[in-house]
Amino acid sequence: MRYELYYWPEIQGRGEFVRLALEEGGADYVDVARRRGYGVDAMKRLMAGPRVKRPPYAPPFLKAGKLVIAQTAMILHYLGPRLHLVPRRDADRLWALQLQLTIVDLVKEIHDTHHPISSALYYEDQRPAAKRYTREFWRQRVPKMLGYFEHVLEQSGGPHVFGRRLCYVDLSLFQVVDGLRYAFPRRMGRFEKKVPRLVALHDRVTERPRIAAYLQSERRIPFNEWGIFRAYRALDS
Amino acid sequence: MRYELYYWPEIQGRGEFVRLALEEGGADYVDVARRRGYGVDAMKRLMAGPRVKRPPYAPPFLKAGKLVIAQTAMILHYLGPRLHLVPRRDADRLWALQLQLTIVDLVKEIHDTHHPISSALYYEDQRPAAKRYTREFWRQRVPKMLGYFEHVLEQSGGPHVFGRRLCYVDLSLFQVVDGLRYAFPRRMGRFEKKVPRLVALHDRVTERPRIAAYLQSERRIPFNEWGIFRAYRALDS
Repeated sequence: MRYELYYWPEIQGRGEFVRLALEEGGADYVDVARRRGYGVDAMKRLMAGPRVKRPPYAPPFLKAGKLVIAQTAMILHYLGPRLHLVPRRDADRLWALQLQLTIVDLVKEIHDTHHPISSALYYEDQRPAAKRYTREFWRQRVPKMLGYFEHVLEQSGGPHVFGRRLCYVDLSLFQVVDGLRYAFPRRMGRFEKKVPRLVALHDRVTERPRIAAYLQSERRIPFNEWGIFRAYRALDS
Repeated sequence: MRYELYYWPEIQGRGEFVRLALEEGGADYVDVARRRGYGVDAMKRLMAGPRVKRPPYAPPFLKAGKLVIAQTAMILHYLGPRLHLVPRRDADRLWALQLQLTIVDLVKEIHDTHHPISSALYYEDQRPAAKRYTREFWRQRVPKMLGYFEHVLEQSGGPHVFGRRLCYVDLSLFQVVDGLRYAFPRRMGRFEKKVPRLVALHDRVTERPRIAAYLQSERRIPFNEWGIFRAYRALDS
């Protein structure tokens, strides 16, 4: 099966959680909107065309044969068994989805550090609120949420959330740590000693051959200031 | 199977989306934290006890036999087929989950109208940001998100998201409309004419015998100013 991923071509964004799974799973896939001369228009047609009976609300979404699947966590829930990136038992699949949904919640809060008032306004037009949001985010939310995943890794025995075997949740946790390092090098540098298992998981994922090759390739879009993780100095002090 | 729902006892909150499904499905369930002399402590033990191998991050969560399931949308995804509140086909179950996840996103944004900076601060300490957030929310997000669900109902032929047959997503859409009416009577009053199918769906759900009985019962906690939908006059002008 050739999968088609639909996502904005200029950013890692939420699509990156799917890209990492497709890469690690060795999937045959096309990153549709990044193809020249095709791109974003094809994506938009699938979202809003009058003949689309079940339109996705927003990218990312995945086309798998006739099925169109949106929502990051649900795409991963669907791909997991097909790419051997989740155990087969129902209870395990649900546990992975539950963890992934908590990552989705965290990612939204990370996004809101630079856009706490509205995504329709520029960062520059909500900077004071962004500073205050970010302060509370690092004071309250990062310890609670990353602390939760650290605890999950402790309970599993590590190094992954299912113990010895990698699953798609581990890839997403890698991306969260990687993104927080990019966006908040100083804050994250100070915080990392509190989540040693998460940091070890990040490093271990980096060393997987397929992920290492992907991170070196042009398929990995560099972090930038249009995505979820943005390096704004004013927010990292 | 007797289900155990774990959620804060004083609010509708996210737990309400689960309660509505349990009620409409005629499930045998206990709302654990609302039982006297038992309550919230039992909930907290399941979240953080050293013997909990797979701890939920936050309520609501559902205990079904030995399985503990957190995240509102996932609880509904699990309950759906068991309570006959979703069609059985895999593609249909995924479509319902996808819609529910978009409702989860909307609910988070509704919550943030009164807490845009931090849930750890009082509303009174973030009122200017809340006013600005709410203005943008009604200008940009409500038309886009409720407009999306209106479009989904149009594509399905109505009155429900699967056409003639009710599913758990319809119950959640009822709750969204009901909550927005409570929190923003003036804004919602003006907006409703743009989403006639959603309003008709709300009214139709209200008339279902089990839901009507539930809404009249003491099991339905009244809306109040500790939950997701809060009636703050300053935000509704």
